[in-house]
Amino acid sequence: MADPRFFPAAGPTRLADIAGAAGASFEGDPDRLFTGVGPLQAAGPDDVSFLDNRRYAGLLAETRAGAVILAGAFAGQVPAGTVALVTPQPYLGFARAARLLHPPPAPVPGIHPTAVVAADAVVGEGTEIGPHAVIGAGARIGRGCILGAQVTVGPAVEIGDHCRLLPHSSVSHAILGEGVVLHPGARIGQEGFGFAPTPDGRFETMPQLGRVILGDFVEVGANACVDRGSQGDTVLGPGTRLDNLVQIGHNVRTGRGCVVVGQAGIAGSTVLEDYVTVAAQAGLTGHLRIGAQARIGAQAGVMNDVPAKTDVIGSPSMPVREFWRAMAKLKALGGGRGGEGKAG
Amino acid sequence: MADPRFFPAAGPTRLADIAGAAGASFEGDPDRLFTGVGPLQAAGPDDVSFLDNRRYAGLLAETRAGAVILAGAFAGQVPAGTVALVTPQPYLGFARAARLLHPPPAPVPGIHPTAVVAADAVVGEGTEIGPHAVIGAGARIGRGCILGAQVTVGPAVEIGDHCRLLPHSSVSHAILGEGVVLHPGARIGQEGFGFAPTPDGRFETMPQLGRVILGDFVEVGANACVDRGSQGDTVLGPGTRLDNLVQIGHNVRTGRGCVVVGQAGIAGSTVLEDYVTVAAQAGLTGHLRIGAQARIGAQAGVMNDVPAKTDVIGSPSMPVREFWRAMAKLKALGGGRGGEGKAG
Amino acid sequence: MADPRFFPAAGPTRLADIAGAAGASFEGDPDRLFTGVGPLQAAGPDDVSFLDNRRYAGLLAETRAGAVILAGAFAGQVPAGTVALVTPQPYLGFARAARLLHPPPAPVPGIHPTAVVAADAVVGEGTEIGPHAVIGAGARIGRGCILGAQVTVGPAVEIGDHCRLLPHSSVSHAILGEGVVLHPGARIGQEGFGFAPTPDGRFETMPQLGRVILGDFVEVGANACVDRGSQGDTVLGPGTRLDNLVQIGHNVRTGRGCVVVGQAGIAGSTVLEDYVTVAAQAGLTGHLRIGAQARIGAQAGVMNDVPAKTDVIGSPSMPVREFWRAMAKLKALGGGRGGEGKAG
Repeated sequence: MADPRFFPAAGPTRLADIAGAAGASFEGDPDRLFTGVGPLQAAGPDDVSFLDNRRYAGLLAETRAGAVILAGAFAGQVPAGTVALVTPQPYLGFARAARLLHPPPAPVPGIHPTAVVAADAVVGEGTEIGPHAVIGAGARIGRGCILGAQVTVGPAVEIGDHCRLLPHSSVSHAILGEGVVLHPGARIGQEGFGFAPTPDGRFETMPQLGRVILGDFVEVGANACVDRGSQGDTVLGPGTRLDNLVQIGHNVRTGRGCVVVGQAGIAGSTVLEDYVTVAAQAGLTGHLRIGAQARIGAQAGVMNDVPAKTDVIGSPSMPVREFWRAMAKLKALGGGRGGEGKAG
Repeated sequence: MADPRFFPAAGPTRLADIAGAAGASFEGDPDRLFTGVGPLQAAGPDDVSFLDNRRYAGLLAETRAGAVILAGAFAGQVPAGTVALVTPQPYLGFARAARLLHPPPAPVPGIHPTAVVAADAVVGEGTEIGPHAVIGAGARIGRGCILGAQVTVGPAVEIGDHCRLLPHSSVSHAILGEGVVLHPGARIGQEGFGFAPTPDGRFETMPQLGRVILGDFVEVGANACVDRGSQGDTVLGPGTRLDNLVQIGHNVRTGRGCVVVGQAGIAGSTVLEDYVTVAAQAGLTGHLRIGAQARIGAQAGVMNDVPAKTDVIGSPSMPVREFWRAMAKLKALGGGRGGEGKAG
Repeated sequence: MADPRFFPAAGPTRLADIAGAAGASFEGDPDRLFTGVGPLQAAGPDDVSFLDNRRYAGLLAETRAGAVILAGAFAGQVPAGTVALVTPQPYLGFARAARLLHPPPAPVPGIHPTAVVAADAVVGEGTEIGPHAVIGAGARIGRGCILGAQVTVGPAVEIGDHCRLLPHSSVSHAILGEGVVLHPGARIGQEGFGFAPTPDGRFETMPQLGRVILGDFVEVGANACVDRGSQGDTVLGPGTRLDNLVQIGHNVRTGRGCVVVGQAGIAGSTVLEDYVTVAAQAGLTGHLRIGAQARIGAQAGVMNDVPAKTDVIGSPSMPVREFWRAMAKLKALGGGRGGEGKAG
């Protein structure tokens, strides 16, 4: 399934090992070997597939996959010859099985001769520094990291162990935890957008004297931007994930496990508590507090605090139910049915 | 008109050759020479101009342009001494004439000494590789390409003939057709945004094991992002054009000649059939099908399939007519006229 | 307060000098020394703080800051031992004091040995060119500039004195004034989005033969894009500031001191007169004129000209008051109160 030029395979792997990785139980030969993964429609006898969405359960009867990771309720529907790998979390189980069969590239330790690494920078054991990378004075890079081609790490930046900085990403004025991933072109630690108007109509930059702190396992998407704090720091809590082209203003703070989807933006000093989700293209103004597990809908425009466990949508945002009722009325206005006609 | 430091001219060019390029008919001296192009208000006797929008027809009487590419209906309005170059497609004709008079830079074949090209990479005849470019193991670059400064091409990537990768663009896990253009900072082939929550509140990355396939003559704008497939590929059909800062999620597929304007985003697995237009800042959720020649309006939020040849706008999106009726009612509500007052 | 690894301090500085920079009057010992800056809650006796927003006036009584820059009305509220630095513009005053205590890095003159600088490029006195930077043929860089790592400057580009091009920014086909700042990954001068459909269903690129002109002290945010003109130039007037991920289409022109906030986009040929503000994620279609000091709200969608000194918001945009009235009605529709129910 996966193109072997881009995704080298681990080689034949025992069913028992796959089930172990996936946290799944099964009946059958633990020594049966598998070599890859694939979707139900395309997987063959040597591949592992999965069923997570009951919408696709109908595909089970026809699949040629050698094994399928799925919930117990569907185990009876796999064809003869296909192993049911049963787990309450099939999507997570498949992620782990896929990683076992197609492990991500390991670092090739060493510093490419074209990289420019400051004399007093510290590079941890087993770390790979790619071509044309630039590491500034006093920077400290952890162990087992991969810094891709063209990556720039500014002076005094600290990067934890097992981080991956993909090509063209750049970071300054920042401290990164363990296992952080910066996707291509991600920008971390640049000046925030702050300035004071002068009496003669110019703008004077407010010095941006804070940092960016990225917790363990934070991921920042391609061409996304995280500005450093103005005073104090911009902080992304452990496990927070930003998708591509997201904008994070100075002094934003997120809790643990927040998710910000593509092209969304969060203005300065707004706080997201744990496990907040911000959907694509949403925008949050500055100085807000978004409660834990709140969910901000796609394209929402949020100008007020949002309580914990609350879903909002719309621009300006409102609770989800209210929004859909209002939209139904609005559509009725447009369609000439309902709305004022009905009212009168 | 065009600054010669940035846009070298081909030199004096015969009217007959310009008309040939433009697909235009004319009356006059086929050997008259022209050296540049310019807008109607600024062009001089040695310049070629054009009229495409009838709104600007009033400028014809005053133009000093030596020749004007226009539709037959306006040919009678050019001043004496100005040649009317008549074609049913003046804008296309002008594009071709301008390209004749100001040809784009040709590749300067060779690999810059600071570029890092893997020993087993294949670089086609007549291709230019710029300073500090990085070409990974097993990559194959076609003939007559230009790869600008700082470009990164990942291992095993295939690039067709006559492609242009502008400075700072990066591509991995991808196969590019002929004549593909990546504008500065475009990101192709990075991991999509996919992960599974774990029982203890972390996220585990779903391995992204697909590729990006860019058809012939696809163009990707500055700092735009095209994620690779999760399983299976992300595919942009021949001639599809993305503007700057566009986001394309994993497993999106577009047909032939789709256009996605600045800052729009398309979420994972959505399919655009041929010649779909997505206007600026619009957003499409995942797993949708947008029919051929549908047009998605600026800032639209599309959450449902759109039939072929249908125009939608609004967030959430609705058919264009319905939207404008609803907006008129909404404005009336805001203005205190119409709306509930009128209804009551 | 500021992490000294990232923000070196100027060293102990006299109160009189700080007051001079801030344009503030004070009572007390002009020779008292200060070493840093900080917010009211965190500043200590050697730090300068400020109060700009009356909402935070309550913090004054408890602050341990050695001096506070504030308006005269609040001078009586500072604790004993804290110096009141009085000015009508505390925010501007603080920007200047902070810059005195933490001066931005000065250029380290010279060209890094890994930079590729064309033989006929001109680099001004006192300018720093970083690792792996690329300067094209005939480019002219002014005095006292800093060009960071991986920066690309295209052929014939002109850059004024005291500009800062942060790492990974790129510029082509452009002329930059004095004191221009390009933040990391900013893209200046690439082709605009223009093409003509052909009769057989392809697109042909319209040659983009204009330039980008950036006035003195223009700033362009991280990963923001400014396309060059199609014919004629794209022009950003003196002091105009673009935030991160902003998109500026070909032939846009702004006046003096315009502000475009994160992820906003302005389509081709639109004109902003002096001191226009475009808030985050707003979009303006092409060929509009936005009058001086107009303010476009966050996420607005502007499709018509806006008169001077007018505030608009909404998509499609409308005057601010009208919008909020309409939204109140819309919310009432959603909430089942007001709207049609009330009307009937």
